[in-house]
Amino acid sequence: MKHLALALAIAGLLNPALAAPKKAAKAPKPTKTAQEILAASPASHWRGLDPENTLLMELANSQGNGQVIIELAPRFAPGHAANIRALARAGYWDGLAIVRVQDNFVTQWGDPDGEDAAKARPLPAGAQAKLPAEFSVPLDRIGKAAGFTRLPDKEGWAPRTGFAEGFPVAADPKAGKAWLAHCYGMVGAGRSDAPDSSNGTELYAVIGQAPRGLDLNITVVGRVLKGMEHLAALPRGTAAMGFYDKPEQRTGIQRVRLLANVAPTERPALQVLKTDSSTWTQLLDARRHRGGWFVHSPGYIDVCSATVPTRPTPPEPAQAPR
Amino acid sequence: MKHLALALAIAGLLNPALAAPKKAAKAPKPTKTAQEILAASPASHWRGLDPENTLLMELANSQGNGQVIIELAPRFAPGHAANIRALARAGYWDGLAIVRVQDNFVTQWGDPDGEDAAKARPLPAGAQAKLPAEFSVPLDRIGKAAGFTRLPDKEGWAPRTGFAEGFPVAADPKAGKAWLAHCYGMVGAGRSDAPDSSNGTELYAVIGQAPRGLDLNITVVGRVLKGMEHLAALPRGTAAMGFYDKPEQRTGIQRVRLLANVAPTERPALQVLKTDSSTWTQLLDARRHRGGWFVHSPGYIDVCSATVPTRPTPPEPAQAPR
Repeated sequence: MKHLALALAIAGLLNPALAAPKKAAKAPKPTKTAQEILAASPASHWRGLDPENTLLMELANSQGNGQVIIELAPRFAPGHAANIRALARAGYWDGLAIVRVQDNFVTQWGDPDGEDAAKARPLPAGAQAKLPAEFSVPLDRIGKAAGFTRLPDKEGWAPRTGFAEGFPVAADPKAGKAWLAHCYGMVGAGRSDAPDSSNGTELYAVIGQAPRGLDLNITVVGRVLKGMEHLAALPRGTAAMGFYDKPEQRTGIQRVRLLANVAPTERPALQVLKTDSSTWTQLLDARRHRGGWFVHSPGYIDVCSATVPTRPTPPEPAQAPR
Repeated sequence: MKHLALALAIAGLLNPALAAPKKAAKAPKPTKTAQEILAASPASHWRGLDPENTLLMELANSQGNGQVIIELAPRFAPGHAANIRALARAGYWDGLAIVRVQDNFVTQWGDPDGEDAAKARPLPAGAQAKLPAEFSVPLDRIGKAAGFTRLPDKEGWAPRTGFAEGFPVAADPKAGKAWLAHCYGMVGAGRSDAPDSSNGTELYAVIGQAPRGLDLNITVVGRVLKGMEHLAALPRGTAAMGFYDKPEQRTGIQRVRLLANVAPTERPALQVLKTDSSTWTQLLDARRHRGGWFVHSPGYIDVCSATVPTRPTPPEPAQAPR
């Protein structure tokens, strides 16, 4: 019982494919469960993967299940997204490695010899060595065009939060700025002290409590849509700040491809829920107002406590013979 | 460079033993760094482990480094703390297993056969099968006696937050209640649908974004002081809700001991920073106001974004001969 019950506490957005446990169905609920809302969602509330904005990373130590799917956010980081596309097209990361895993913070990958000009992997044609920082965008860039869905819930990190094109967003109307929030699974571009020193060659994914203090300090380039478990369950590095002591401790990257360069038959059949759909709004509300196992309903969510669902692309409906 | 730099972004409270990278020392800072504050902290701001409230868990698959140190919170869950002490004294968990690891949520351990009355491990003498729920305590229980340090920063999950005896605490003055907040590394007692159905035999630790929606819904019994990386880096279970499909996928628990039952010479030499010390207040402030690598200072923290530091017990100062 306890197994089932604790699980109910979070069977919400994190695993939309999850069937509602029988026990939950029997328990009284003030609202529909996330599973019920997702089951009732129309096909038009889901979108496919954008081949020009999706990366497929395969880890070398994977037992056939180490695929990480990352969606880029060109609306928030156009320069970095373009550079990352060029890097992926050229196979820049193929054979490189995960160099750092710091518990409750980030998993970081890139060129282990990146600091050594003599040994560093050269940038391919079409990739820029230097890019402007893209820490925020003008607020009006995340309006209707991006289908911005604002959260009524207040938080302390930013005056305004919500979701745009599947990404968690924070904004400051007074400053006229919006930016991607550092939530679990978000992907950013490592930089040195100079704000404009990131070029997308070295990337990190958040694997712990949202480090919102990084917001507006570094360029966020996208989020992991699927495969976080392959990045978050890696052994932590034991050197300073989670770097690996020895090269053999690193997890190798087999390859990183842009989805556009993957044969259509090989592409993952995955869909992402549209965050400007009523299904998403209902899911957020189901997350605020919990029933069943819950004896206290929080009546609140924050932008990093709700993960935008993905699902396997459903089969085409059968066609009548013509 | 990027390695160092991204790291600076978080070299704060998470790893107090960490020497400040040279680059950081050169960079201008509005406040002292966490490392500088910790280096200057007087011995009186640190406390040792309480043998009656500390658990040592050793994972069976550990290469000699799988020790997890958990501190119990009897002020918040006296009944569960007492039961957990009795269970540990009797070696209840020895040879049991980690049964569930759900990405961005929890790692859970206990008796894999706990649901099967015929196979379940019997409770030892002195352990209760049934306990009252301990979801919150009267607000006045976390006043001066607990050295409650209130955070001025507002958040959306609770009207008041702060720290008491090293634990992140949330409170509602109108309701006159206080409770332990579900932050990364916090340990709770799994329950079924009945609020009073937990007895501490099945425990979980938070390994992802703080699931604050669980606050006031389940009994929180303490937090992991050291060894989170051994719980958070485990392979995720692939069955529903992160349970393992096959028994052989589970990580075994070698043993769980109460520190009081461990020979003094074998006890870990670890200290915890007192959260009613000025050192902790300074660390929180250094976390709010960042310098060096940061171009934007958040000016804010929340109760789950600052981890109370531990450190190896420093050697005794040399004694003059008598």
